Amino acid sequence: MEPSWMAEIQWSADGLVPAIAQDGASGRVLMFAYMNRESLLRTVETGEAHYWSRSRGRLWHKGEESGHTQRVIDINLDCDGDVILLSIDQVGGIACHTGRESCFFRRLEESAWVTRDDVLADPAVIYSGSKGKHT
Amino acid sequence: MEPSWMAEIQWSADGLVPAIAQDGASGRVLMFAYMNRESLLRTVETGEAHYWSRSRGRLWHKGEESGHTQRVIDINLDCDGDVILLSIDQVGGIACHTGRESCFFRRLEESAWVTRDDVLADPAVIYSGSKGKHT
Repeated sequence: MEPSWMAEIQWSADGLVPAIAQDGASGRVLMFAYMNRESLLRTVETGEAHYWSRSRGRLWHKGEESGHTQRVIDINLDCDGDVILLSIDQVGGIACHTGRESCFFRRLEESAWVTRDDVLADPAVIYSGSKGKHT
Repeated sequence: MEPSWMAEIQWSADGLVPAIAQDGASGRVLMFAYMNRESLLRTVETGEAHYWSRSRGRLWHKGEESGHTQRVIDINLDCDGDVILLSIDQVGGIACHTGRESCFFRRLEESAWVTRDDVLADPAVIYSGSKGKHT
């Protein structure tokens, strides 16, 4: 039986909600993913962000391969109850599978997307034997 | 013919991408909505955030009724090219149709969603003759 707070969430037809992860210290938006009920429950229970990997069709404990887990500071819900905002502490300072702090590393400048962040760690080193990418 | 930077975006099957609006000064995440090609083009052309209202099935110039427009500071794209992050200046300091600064005004505390923000302006006053709500 799901907790009452979870029943207030407006899940999509496929049982997901979008989730935004924001760095609790810098305020930077680090990534965007989806959660299902199980991933949100696991997030609450463990204090570490869990998502639903649509590409792999399974529960995704963020950082399970890279070690770049996300410690949850707080969990927020929007006015419609259909989007989650996590404030997190990003372990290792790297949220993106490209080895950058944030997935939002490209900015539109004069009709082109310009990369504005350095790669902090080589993905080939971060991820051993996997592509490391979830969507 | 669409600009080359737009062709790099991975639109969903229904021609949308999720868009996150973040206050450029405070860093607070204010709202989450969707954009189609037209709304993103209009956003770039006008410097004010435009979304696609799924509930109304039409282009949505944010603030068109309330006056609470969003002046775009910059437009960012994530690693997969399928999520937009806008840094914006929120006119009136109110992004949410409930009259609050941010749509993310509920926080999970001891198994309940607790409202942590005050209503800054009565929605009945903000919106004349409309519900004011888009999703």
